[in-house]
Amino acid sequence: MNDRIPQEAQLAQSIALSREPLPASRKTHVAGSLHPELRVPMRAISLTNGETVTVYDASGPYTDPAAQIDVRRGLPAPRAAWVEARQDTEAYEGRRIQLIDDGLRDQEQQLKLRELSAGLQRTPRRAKAGHNVTQLHYARRGIITPEMEFVAIRENQRLDWMREYEADAEREARLRGKPMGAHIPAQITPEFVREEVARGRAIIPANINHPELEPMAIGRNFLVKVNANIGNSAVTSSIEEEVEKMVWATRWGADTVMDLSTGRNIHTTRDWIIRNSAVPIGTVPIYQALEKVGGVAEDLTWALFRDTLIEQAEQGVDYFTIHAGLRLPFVPLTVKRRTGIVSRGGSILAKWCIAHHQENFLYTHFEEICEIMKAYDVSFSLGDGLRPGSLADANDEAQFAELRTLGELTKIAWKHDVQTMIEGPGHVPMHLIQANMDEQLKHCDEAPFYTLGPLTTDIAPGYDHITSGIGAAMIGWSGCAMLCYVTPKEHLGLPDRDDVKAGLMAYKIAAHAADVAKGHPGARARDDALSKARFEFRWTDQFNLGLDPETAREFHDETLPKDSAKVAHFCSMCGPKFCSMKITQEVRDYAAAQQGMADKSAEFKAQGGELYIPIAKS
Amino acid sequence: MNDRIPQEAQLAQSIALSREPLPASRKTHVAGSLHPELRVPMRAISLTNGETVTVYDASGPYTDPAAQIDVRRGLPAPRAAWVEARQDTEAYEGRRIQLIDDGLRDQEQQLKLRELSAGLQRTPRRAKAGHNVTQLHYARRGIITPEMEFVAIRENQRLDWMREYEADAEREARLRGKPMGAHIPAQITPEFVREEVARGRAIIPANINHPELEPMAIGRNFLVKVNANIGNSAVTSSIEEEVEKMVWATRWGADTVMDLSTGRNIHTTRDWIIRNSAVPIGTVPIYQALEKVGGVAEDLTWALFRDTLIEQAEQGVDYFTIHAGLRLPFVPLTVKRRTGIVSRGGSILAKWCIAHHQENFLYTHFEEICEIMKAYDVSFSLGDGLRPGSLADANDEAQFAELRTLGELTKIAWKHDVQTMIEGPGHVPMHLIQANMDEQLKHCDEAPFYTLGPLTTDIAPGYDHITSGIGAAMIGWSGCAMLCYVTPKEHLGLPDRDDVKAGLMAYKIAAHAADVAKGHPGARARDDALSKARFEFRWTDQFNLGLDPETAREFHDETLPKDSAKVAHFCSMCGPKFCSMKITQEVRDYAAAQQGMADKSAEFKAQGGELYIPIAKS
Repeated sequence: MNDRIPQEAQLAQSIALSREPLPASRKTHVAGSLHPELRVPMRAISLTNGETVTVYDASGPYTDPAAQIDVRRGLPAPRAAWVEARQDTEAYEGRRIQLIDDGLRDQEQQLKLRELSAGLQRTPRRAKAGHNVTQLHYARRGIITPEMEFVAIRENQRLDWMREYEADAEREARLRGKPMGAHIPAQITPEFVREEVARGRAIIPANINHPELEPMAIGRNFLVKVNANIGNSAVTSSIEEEVEKMVWATRWGADTVMDLSTGRNIHTTRDWIIRNSAVPIGTVPIYQALEKVGGVAEDLTWALFRDTLIEQAEQGVDYFTIHAGLRLPFVPLTVKRRTGIVSRGGSILAKWCIAHHQENFLYTHFEEICEIMKAYDVSFSLGDGLRPGSLADANDEAQFAELRTLGELTKIAWKHDVQTMIEGPGHVPMHLIQANMDEQLKHCDEAPFYTLGPLTTDIAPGYDHITSGIGAAMIGWSGCAMLCYVTPKEHLGLPDRDDVKAGLMAYKIAAHAADVAKGHPGARARDDALSKARFEFRWTDQFNLGLDPETAREFHDETLPKDSAKVAHFCSMCGPKFCSMKITQEVRDYAAAQQGMADKSAEFKAQGGELYIPIAKS
Repeated sequence: MNDRIPQEAQLAQSIALSREPLPASRKTHVAGSLHPELRVPMRAISLTNGETVTVYDASGPYTDPAAQIDVRRGLPAPRAAWVEARQDTEAYEGRRIQLIDDGLRDQEQQLKLRELSAGLQRTPRRAKAGHNVTQLHYARRGIITPEMEFVAIRENQRLDWMREYEADAEREARLRGKPMGAHIPAQITPEFVREEVARGRAIIPANINHPELEPMAIGRNFLVKVNANIGNSAVTSSIEEEVEKMVWATRWGADTVMDLSTGRNIHTTRDWIIRNSAVPIGTVPIYQALEKVGGVAEDLTWALFRDTLIEQAEQGVDYFTIHAGLRLPFVPLTVKRRTGIVSRGGSILAKWCIAHHQENFLYTHFEEICEIMKAYDVSFSLGDGLRPGSLADANDEAQFAELRTLGELTKIAWKHDVQTMIEGPGHVPMHLIQANMDEQLKHCDEAPFYTLGPLTTDIAPGYDHITSGIGAAMIGWSGCAMLCYVTPKEHLGLPDRDDVKAGLMAYKIAAHAADVAKGHPGARARDDALSKARFEFRWTDQFNLGLDPETAREFHDETLPKDSAKVAHFCSMCGPKFCSMKITQEVRDYAAAQQGMADKSAEFKAQGGELYIPIAKS
C-alpha cells in the first residue's frame, strides 16, 4: 500500500500546510481529572440553531488557529513530561546516523539533509536497565497512565451533547446495537482503558520517543479506527510537502498514519513526519532494511534488521509491522494460489526464506525483537505476509497457518508485556469475512485486529475504496479494531491528495457504520444531529455535521448556489413541489391543527399503536 | 430519487448517444433452444492472451456497432411477435392524449411535441376480454414463454468460459457461497425460471406494450439487479438528450431504469424513453397524477389516477410503484419520527389521507388496479411510502406496519396473477438490515425485495453511494433481488452524468459482491479472470475485465502513461523493486528450479499440509 513515486512522476511541488479549521468548527480541549494537565482535543461544530456538536478529532494542532507551528522545529511535546515523570527511562546518545539510513552515497547530500532537519533532532530515551516502559506493563501493574486517561476522555467525545438524542426510550431499545462479542460500557473510564490494555484487548501505540503524540487506543471495545498510508516522494522538495501528506490524512480523520517510504531520504523523511505528527506513526522496517541491502532480499541479515529497528525506535515510530508469522514451511502453500504472495513484506521474506532454506529470521529472533519493543514501547503490528490478494485465495491454508502463528507470537509478545495488534486481509468475499474475525479472535485471544479492507470483489479496479469499504464496515462491526484504508488507485498507481481523501471518506464511513452497529455509546448521536438538521432544512448544519462539509456544500451549490437556498425548504433533487420532507412538515402542521387527529390518536393508542404527540412547528 | 432540474439549472445541451462498445468488447448473441428465434445479448471481452470472457450485458443495442438506431423511430421490437403469437391480446384505439398529460396549456406546443414523436407512436394492445396476459399467469399454467427462456440464457452468462476458474475442487469447497436461504441451481433452465415466476419469487417486468424489451428477471435466486433513476429536464432540448440518460445508465449496468420525470412533457418524454429502451422502465404514476392536479395532493382522485395508470400502461411502462400500503392509521405513527415521511409518493398520499380523513385510495381500489395490471402485464413495485429517512427511524412501527400491509397486498396481487415486488428502505444501520429482509420474506412470502440502499449512516452527505453501497451489498447477500442506486448527490441536488456513473459503479459492486457471497454459479469467475490478469501483469486485460475499464486505465496512466508500462511487471504504486507480485513470480521460478523444494513439499504433505505443485512459468 505504498505510494512511492517512480521516476515518471517526479513533480516537486511546494505545498502549504492545510491549517484552516473545518467549517464552523473550533478546537476545544478537555482537561483530565486524574491528570489535570491533560488537554484532550475535540472538534466543536457550531450549528445555526445555537447547538454545539462535539466530535472526535484526529487532526492535531494543525486545525487550531491558535497553535504556532514550525515544521522545522516540530510540534510541542506535552507527553515528554509524562514519560520523564515515570523515572524509568533515560536519555542516551543513541545510534549514529549513517549514510545508508537515507540511501545516500554522498556525505555532502546527507549533511544538507541533516542541516535542514537540525531543529528536529532529539536525544533519544530508552528504558533504564531492567525496566519495561510499555503501556501494557503499566496497565498490568494497575497504573493508570496519563495516556490511558487521555484515551478515555477522547473516546467519550463529550457525551453531554448526545443526551438529547438518546432520550427516546422506545427508539433506543429499537436501535440498540448488536455488539458481536464487544463489551462497551456506557462511559469509558480511565480504569476501563487500563483493564483493556492489561488484557491485551487494546493497545495505545505510544513510543516514549514520540512525545508530540495525542494518545489513542486501538481495540474492539473502542471506536473503530482508520489508518492511512503515506510515502515519501522520490524527489523531496521540502519538509512541508512531506508533513502535509500526514496533515492532510489526519485532517480527514486518519487515526494513525503509516509511513511506507522507500528509496532515498527515508530516515530524514521519518524525522520530519514524526516530529510533526500528533497521531501514532507506523512503519514496516523491512522496507528500509531492504533498501540498505540494495533491494536484494537474500542479503538481509538479522544484525542489519535489528539495527534498523533501533534506528526507527529512537526516532519515535509507534508501531512496527513485523512479518514474523510467515514461516518457511508456509511458502509452498502459496504456489497453487491465484495471486501468490501480495504483501510486499511477505514476498521479501518469502524470498529470503527460500533463498537460504532457512526459517524466517523475524520468527527465530522474535524474543530479541520483543526486548527492543519494550525498551521504547513500540507496539507490534504482526504482519500478514500471506494475506490473500484475490477472492480465490481467501481463507486458504497459507493465510490461516500464518494467522495461527501470529497467535503464538502474540502470547510471546504478551509475555514481554509488549503491546500487540494483528494485521489481516486483504481480498475476502463477504461470506468469508466472519471466519477471519472468528479465527483471529480465537488464535490471537482478542488482540486488536487491523485489516486492509477486506475487498469483497476483485472486479472493480478504480473503485477499490468501495469494494473494500463494504468489507471494512462488516469486519469492523464483527470486532476489527482498526481499518487500513484503500484508495481508488489501489492496484493501479500512486494515490494523489484526492485519492487519499476519497479513501479516508470511505473508511470513516465504514468505521462509523461499524460503531453504530456495535452500539458504541453515542455513535449514533451524530447521525441523529445531522438528520435533524436535514429534516429542519438547516442546510449549512447538514453540510457541517457531515464527514466532508466542503464536498456536501459544493454538490448542493452546483444547482442552487444562492445563499437563500441554504434556508430553502427543498433542494434541486426533487424541487420545491416534490420535497417529501416539506410535505411531511405540512402534514404535521395540518395534523396538529386538526382536532380530529386527537381522536385518531386515541383510537390507535387503544389498538396498541404508538402514542401520537403533535410536535410544535420547528 | 428524482433529478428534476430547477429553474437555476436549465442548461439545454445536445448530447450524442453513447454508442461505442466498451474496450475490447463486442456484442454476441445466444440463440434459444425452445425458442430458436431468441437472440440473447452478451458482452464478449477479448483478452490479450487469446481468451474470451463473456459477461451479462444490460446496455441494449446501443453498444452494438452493427445496430441501426434512430431515436425518432425507436428500437426494433422482436418481442412483438412473441406477444402476438400468444393470441390473447388485441390492438385497440387506446386512450386519447390530453394536454394535461404533458402538463401543457397550449395546444400548439403539444402538437409540436407530438410531431417530434410521430415515429414513436404505437397502437396499444391489451388482454382480450377474460384473458390475463402476465408472465405469472403463463407460468402458473406451465407455459415457458420466450421471455422466460431469454432470462434463463441471460442469467447463465455462457457458463462455458467459467469452467476453468471452477476446476480447483479445494478452492471451490473453501469459497462455496452462503446462500442465506436462496436456492440457486448450477444451471438456470427455462423451467427453473418458470417455476420461480409461478411461485411469485421472481418477476419478469415486461409490459406487452414494450416489445423493444430484452427481458430480465428480478428474484432472489437470480443475479442481483440494479436500478437507476432518471428524470426529464425542465427544458427538453431533444429526444437524444432524454434517451441518452437511459443509454448512459444501461451502459454502466442499470438493469432497469425508473423514469421519475415531473413537470412538463412527461408523457412525451416517456414515449421517447420506452420506445428506445431495451431495459424495463418503471414509474411512480402518482407523480404524474399530482402534476395533473397542479401539485395539490388533496385534489387527487381515484378516477384521475386510474386514467393515468392506463395512459402509462398503454405506453409500455413495465412496473409501477404503487404506495398502496400507506394506510391512514399509519400516518400518526410517523409524527414522533426524526425525519417523518421521506418518500415523495408516501408524503403525497399521507397528505391526501389526512386532508380527507379517508383511507388511501390506492388501498381501497387495489383490486381494480390489479385488473389494469393484468391486462398489460405491468408489475407491481409496492412502494414503501413510510421507509425510514434516518437511522433513528429505522425498523419502526410505521415502517413495519406498512410492510405487513404490503404482504397482504402481495397475496391479493397474486390472486390476480399480477407480478409483484416490494420496495424497501432507506436508512438502516447494519445491525438492523437482516431484520428488514426477514420481515419482508415472512410477510411477503418471498416476493422479490427491491431496496434503496439501505444507507448505513447519515453522516456522509456527498458520499451516500458509499454509505448505501455497504447496506446494499449486505441486503443483496441476504436475499434482496434488486438494489435501487443512490448517487453521491443524494440529499443534496441533481445528479449529473458522473454522479449517475458513480452511483452505478457502487451498486454494481454491491450486487456482484452479493452474488459472490450467495454463491451464484459462476459469479466469482470474473473475479478470478481479473485476478489472474493482474497476477500475470496483463494490465490491459485487468482494465478491460473491470466494471469501468476507462477509469482503471486512466488511473494507471496518470503516472505510467507509456505503452511499455502495459506489460511492465510493476506499477507506480510500489515501483519496480517493491512489487510483491513480481517477487512472488521470482519466488515461484526460484522454487521450481530448486530440487530441495520437492523434499520440502513431501515433508509438508506428510504433515497434512497442502500439495505442492510447481507451476510452469506464465
